[in-house]
Amino acid sequence: MKMSKNINIAVIGLGQIGSYVYNELNIKKKDIEIKTGKKIKVVGISAKNKNKKRKFKINKKIFYSNPLDILKIKNLHIIIEAIGLSDGISKKVIETALKNKIHVITPNKALISKHGDKLGELAEKNKVNLEFEASVAGGIPIIRTIKEGLATNKITKVYGILNGTCNYILSEMEKTKDSFVSVLKKAQYFGYAEPGNPKLDLNGYDALAKIKILSSLAFNKKISKSNCLMEGIENIEFKDIEIANQLNFRIKLLGITEIIKNSIFERVHPCMVNKDSYIGNVSGVMNAVILNGSPIGESVLQGEGAGPGPTSSAIMSDLLSILRGNIKFPFGITRTKRQKPKIFNKDISSNSLYVRLEVKDKPGVLSSITKIFANYKISIQRIIQIPNSKKKTASIVIITHDANELSSQKCIKSFKLNRNIIKNPVLIRLF
Amino acid sequence: MKMSKNINIAVIGLGQIGSYVYNELNIKKKDIEIKTGKKIKVVGISAKNKNKKRKFKINKKIFYSNPLDILKIKNLHIIIEAIGLSDGISKKVIETALKNKIHVITPNKALISKHGDKLGELAEKNKVNLEFEASVAGGIPIIRTIKEGLATNKITKVYGILNGTCNYILSEMEKTKDSFVSVLKKAQYFGYAEPGNPKLDLNGYDALAKIKILSSLAFNKKISKSNCLMEGIENIEFKDIEIANQLNFRIKLLGITEIIKNSIFERVHPCMVNKDSYIGNVSGVMNAVILNGSPIGESVLQGEGAGPGPTSSAIMSDLLSILRGNIKFPFGITRTKRQKPKIFNKDISSNSLYVRLEVKDKPGVLSSITKIFANYKISIQRIIQIPNSKKKTASIVIITHDANELSSQKCIKSFKLNRNIIKNPVLIRLF
Repeated sequence: MKMSKNINIAVIGLGQIGSYVYNELNIKKKDIEIKTGKKIKVVGISAKNKNKKRKFKINKKIFYSNPLDILKIKNLHIIIEAIGLSDGISKKVIETALKNKIHVITPNKALISKHGDKLGELAEKNKVNLEFEASVAGGIPIIRTIKEGLATNKITKVYGILNGTCNYILSEMEKTKDSFVSVLKKAQYFGYAEPGNPKLDLNGYDALAKIKILSSLAFNKKISKSNCLMEGIENIEFKDIEIANQLNFRIKLLGITEIIKNSIFERVHPCMVNKDSYIGNVSGVMNAVILNGSPIGESVLQGEGAGPGPTSSAIMSDLLSILRGNIKFPFGITRTKRQKPKIFNKDISSNSLYVRLEVKDKPGVLSSITKIFANYKISIQRIIQIPNSKKKTASIVIITHDANELSSQKCIKSFKLNRNIIKNPVLIRLF
Repeated sequence: MKMSKNINIAVIGLGQIGSYVYNELNIKKKDIEIKTGKKIKVVGISAKNKNKKRKFKINKKIFYSNPLDILKIKNLHIIIEAIGLSDGISKKVIETALKNKIHVITPNKALISKHGDKLGELAEKNKVNLEFEASVAGGIPIIRTIKEGLATNKITKVYGILNGTCNYILSEMEKTKDSFVSVLKKAQYFGYAEPGNPKLDLNGYDALAKIKILSSLAFNKKISKSNCLMEGIENIEFKDIEIANQLNFRIKLLGITEIIKNSIFERVHPCMVNKDSYIGNVSGVMNAVILNGSPIGESVLQGEGAGPGPTSSAIMSDLLSILRGNIKFPFGITRTKRQKPKIFNKDISSNSLYVRLEVKDKPGVLSSITKIFANYKISIQRIIQIPNSKKKTASIVIITHDANELSSQKCIKSFKLNRNIIKNPVLIRLF
């Protein structure tokens, strides 16, 4: 589609993100014209509730109850999808737009990580853009950096802190010594965590969706469909943070993807990271991404990961890219060259572990535990026993040497069946 | 110029950077075709010495003694200028290329910071690209990030470690306790510092050139021609690093540009930074850039700043941008909208200072020094006296409260005239 000087845009979904973007589009018109030579106009908006109270006033004359009706507007050039569902109406709107040769911008990581390949194909066939910079680490232009800034590098590993909610909760627990539950409430109050259902942030799903998107871009593969290693932070107690601190560690939820023997190993789980390391000092709602590549070496990017401001900044960068006529393959290379990734067998991976067991404080317990480790050929590097004389229980913390993943899982399972162990074991991998 | 499928490229200058890029172009042809759909071919190369021993073999059949002759090749689309002079043949080659509607890629910060405005105009008029991602912090795609990733943000401050040579020397002095001179020799041996004339790195000129480029991009202004505050690291002794360490500081050469009351304040000088801060922990040849903007908040980018690998990575990203047809204004917005910057008067700035004086160890000296500070209305926060009984001298270290720049300079001048002060005073600003 040849782009005219006047560009018509629609914003679909007017929640926190959508309404912030809508406002930015209005106040930055001039700036955008200076930078791109294009005059933009918002010609349609849509949301569930027309009359909801919003931070920014909306023009009700251009409101559509049915978002699909927006796509029938004549000469509509670009839509910004900010509904945020992984399927349903989000998918329908984007598919229809692409088929109608309308450019699409979306911050929707759930949808891109699930349907990105198909939607990317659709965009490519129809010669329009599908842009999703805001889907990963809002304030960090990581997708553009991989697709453009580091375009000819051979990337071997990408990892980082990709969920601001979890990072805020872990940082805040350390700072205030509050429990997970009370810090979560605070996060919800400040808008860092979903008020309704924060589960997808806390269980690692959100970070994994982002890792899958980064993986596909960094390694030029299709998005993996496999069940990777995914663990969240729901079971982390203040006790673990305190013990980590004594051991000169800090607990962070990391997303990691790397190439091992031509296969891709993607994972999200809490990690014990060195307190003096760079990643150990990224705190609060900050996100950070670290890339290893050749010839670039190590590259680090850090910025605010969530919230309407940073997300909107990313959406606007997508918009400018489209307005400058920068039509590209959505995933950096053409769909015909993107192959299915080979998935690394996580069972053969190995990692040093932190294991905390709550046990009855009686003779023989420690030796039975160390015996179980030995049975699974996991060798112990360090052991700490913290008695709780009131309850006649004790916390036993074990740091292991490198242990095979499958054995580790079996070992943890057998602890769960052990009568002397009175709570579910806590396992955190060392990084 | 409509771009054909077959793209002809010339590399002018075959030093460390040029020959590395030449090799990358040859080995990454396929990858580039997959990513852009374009077949590239190196059709011309040029250097001072045809027969010099190089790490990578060159094709002598396409060698030109006179780089200007390369520009006469029919259907030449892109040149990569890697000679590196701020004027002379570098400027001539680039000017001629742009006039002939040939795209130009250059890592040449000296040239861009000096002639970028005019060359940018020339590129714009001739509708070709002038790309210079590699001119600032090689491994960090900072220029693309400002122009594209953060395109609609209002940026208020950009600062960081922009000279890998200086950062290596300061880190290495701290680590090995060696003198400036001996660490510099090591840096030259490893290729981190120019073997011939490292002066432009050490005196802050190189970092200032980069700050000027970043300034113009971040604030959408023409490149400043003013003499900013520029100090290098040549006068820093191991003693300062040692004392900084005791005070929980580390010495870093920072480049800083920010908007103060609608004026631009650009500066490069050594800073005492907190040892626990992010910037205090960027060591060795690493570069780091920190941006403050709205709505983005704080954004951090870190990576290797120099060397053929990272520089080549940046040049290749410029190349891909051109091959993807991403024709843009060289400085993000059209030349007609880029105004001359208003320059902040550095004399009215203020900063907390570290001052080290080497004095004769005799009665009354300390009081005469504190009196001079008082005369210039500089108030002292902390004072440390370290005697050297052998030489009957002492080091006096003073940390001041916020002090006016002009007064500080006058104060230092008057110390230089003081007979009890036996060496040039050392002044390092606190950050």
